[in-house]
Amino acid sequence: MATVKLWTDAEAEAHPRIKAVFDDIRATRKSDFVNNFWRGLADRPEVLERTWTAVKEVMGAPGPLDPLTRELVYIAVSITNNCAYCIHSHTAAARAKGMTDAQYADFLAVVGLAAQNNALSTGLQLPVDMEFLVAS
Amino acid sequence: MATVKLWTDAEAEAHPRIKAVFDDIRATRKSDFVNNFWRGLADRPEVLERTWTAVKEVMGAPGPLDPLTRELVYIAVSITNNCAYCIHSHTAAARAKGMTDAQYADFLAVVGLAAQNNALSTGLQLPVDMEFLVAS
Amino acid sequence: MATVKLWTDAEAEAHPRIKAVFDDIRATRKSDFVNNFWRGLADRPEVLERTWTAVKEVMGAPGPLDPLTRELVYIAVSITNNCAYCIHSHTAAARAKGMTDAQYADFLAVVGLAAQNNALSTGLQLPVDMEFLVAS
Amino acid sequence: MATVKLWTDAEAEAHPRIKAVFDDIRATRKSDFVNNFWRGLADRPEVLERTWTAVKEVMGAPGPLDPLTRELVYIAVSITNNCAYCIHSHTAAARAKGMTDAQYADFLAVVGLAAQNNALSTGLQLPVDMEFLVAS
Amino acid sequence: MATVKLWTDAEAEAHPRIKAVFDDIRATRKSDFVNNFWRGLADRPEVLERTWTAVKEVMGAPGPLDPLTRELVYIAVSITNNCAYCIHSHTAAARAKGMTDAQYADFLAVVGLAAQNNALSTGLQLPVDMEFLVAS
Amino acid sequence: MATVKLWTDAEAEAHPRIKAVFDDIRATRKSDFVNNFWRGLADRPEVLERTWTAVKEVMGAPGPLDPLTRELVYIAVSITNNCAYCIHSHTAAARAKGMTDAQYADFLAVVGLAAQNNALSTGLQLPVDMEFLVAS
Repeated sequence: MATVKLWTDAEAEAHPRIKAVFDDIRATRKSDFVNNFWRGLADRPEVLERTWTAVKEVMGAPGPLDPLTRELVYIAVSITNNCAYCIHSHTAAARAKGMTDAQYADFLAVVGLAAQNNALSTGLQLPVDMEFLVAS
Repeated sequence: MATVKLWTDAEAEAHPRIKAVFDDIRATRKSDFVNNFWRGLADRPEVLERTWTAVKEVMGAPGPLDPLTRELVYIAVSITNNCAYCIHSHTAAARAKGMTDAQYADFLAVVGLAAQNNALSTGLQLPVDMEFLVAS
Repeated sequence: MATVKLWTDAEAEAHPRIKAVFDDIRATRKSDFVNNFWRGLADRPEVLERTWTAVKEVMGAPGPLDPLTRELVYIAVSITNNCAYCIHSHTAAARAKGMTDAQYADFLAVVGLAAQNNALSTGLQLPVDMEFLVAS
Repeated sequence: MATVKLWTDAEAEAHPRIKAVFDDIRATRKSDFVNNFWRGLADRPEVLERTWTAVKEVMGAPGPLDPLTRELVYIAVSITNNCAYCIHSHTAAARAKGMTDAQYADFLAVVGLAAQNNALSTGLQLPVDMEFLVAS
Repeated sequence: MATVKLWTDAEAEAHPRIKAVFDDIRATRKSDFVNNFWRGLADRPEVLERTWTAVKEVMGAPGPLDPLTRELVYIAVSITNNCAYCIHSHTAAARAKGMTDAQYADFLAVVGLAAQNNALSTGLQLPVDMEFLVAS
Repeated sequence: MATVKLWTDAEAEAHPRIKAVFDDIRATRKSDFVNNFWRGLADRPEVLERTWTAVKEVMGAPGPLDPLTRELVYIAVSITNNCAYCIHSHTAAARAKGMTDAQYADFLAVVGLAAQNNALSTGLQLPVDMEFLVAS
């Protein structure tokens, strides 16, 4: 159970700013489904608007990384932060964007390896090799 | 300063199992550089061997994800776990594998957005929408 | 399901040290409700006593921060550590201490922004500006 | 050493979008100091702009939480995420906004207590009491 | 609900590499129970094999730390990473290896204290005392 | 550089409560060395006293876990929380309490494995097997 009310479509109907975001989510995704994340953020319209704008731009606008790669990066962060909601929603999004079972298994192997090597490096308090300290 | 001795090449010379891993790192990477991670793990040869084998297979073997995508996923985990050593070494590795400045900026935008939305979702304790609960 | 037995009032009745803490929780909070956190800690009376004393002093004693500000700081830590139990219990406590919906939305915006900027700063491995290194 | 170039004022001079943000940071803060966070984000102007806009709105716009409370929440997240850059910059910001040594010590006691109780609650895998599951 | 299919014994029967690992888990543990962790990893046989080999060696092979100490270390990491699955499975494993209620309570007190002092040390950004910087 | 002043012995001399804690640390540890953690906490005597009392009891009092096991658990939490100060100080403490290089390498292998399996379990969002849900 969430710590806030999740706005229904009926409730959003009476609030133009909230309705506008819900409408844009539907139009952008070409789907009638508005997931709980947006329904939970609607208590404060400017947070809802800013977050949706950021998601639309960062995940959706054409750019140097393709949509699936962005989803994999997003899930990697979400697993490490242990956000169950985000893991489920973005693993579903990655599948919708074409992620195969083999790619998902490859991805998980990298996530697991990184987590292990992070712990080992941090435990050993390794100094960064000079060779890596080359700014772009 | 590390919590363990970092093995020099001269020290590794006298220990065949350690030397074998260092040699394979050099041969695999076609470079004489063996970074501190491996020098810190050498106190226990089986950990050194198992970790190197895993890195070689997970990051290096051909598979459904390309090498740069794997590096981006690895860095995403390392940033979220806050492993300075891993961030520096794998950002350098990603650049060596062709990551452009534009790709790196795109990547960071996704990492930042995911971190924000993870916090919001967790704060709200959102229930996962039924629509996302579809196993592969 | 917890990894330990949650002590009922009937069970606590037979153990004076546990009963004394439960009684003090009720007296301090002017409520009959003793939540699961205390029921789970009761297996080791000195941990129960030390934890309750700390909570009473840190969250309850008059001091330079007001009770609601302390709750907000507590929830911010709990969200970042992803402690579902703590998020629910302290968000409820904050509401009981007067947190409005508008304050909660303002708070969440700060939590989300901090999480994003933490990830960006860590990803970039930014050196701390000299201007910030001024001890109190 | 950062993983990216930190833009100097001279370099920003030639890029109108970057210069505009640096100028607005100076005007908003009534200070000539532009810290490394903004210099590291400038490689991608839209990320720089979006992040600055969010910081200005979330931390600076009048709202139901006062500026110091927002800073304390921000630092609490940053400590828990272990972002050294963010801890230093926002602890300095909190002092600039009037945080006293006594308030800081009070704040740290809450952060430490929350971290401890998060670990205990998570270790015990406590079920959330029904009493806390009351949405706003 | 998992993000992948959990392999049943019947499904594993038709895949020799998966069946071999399930068989070895049963033989090693002298139990017919194969838990969900292994059923979820089976989509990619080499990840299943590598992970099982590592668990068998790291947790099961005789070495300088006894099996219960290893479990306590494992649970400490799992609590801090907030992995509910891992906390439940390894707390059960620790009990199976002889952990008493008193040992568990002692363990949790250490975990809680460490979490608190981690937060305090990180918040204060304490420089490491020279006395501690002595490599092995 | 710390975010607070680190109290010198000369400064502590004039404050009886602070001096009393420093004296007890020295007497308990049979050493003249008082590390930075205590010097940074001294701004608020009750936090200093409460923290020292907890450390003395949790880490030092005889109990069902031996002192070295407690240190290993403490370091495991500190690595996962990425507290450099705590990793250094408690790895040094563990060595002072007899930890061998072989034990340390064994310990690190467990920490790394747990971190990897935490990430895999969380990524897969595995349901906890019924067999593990047996309270003490």
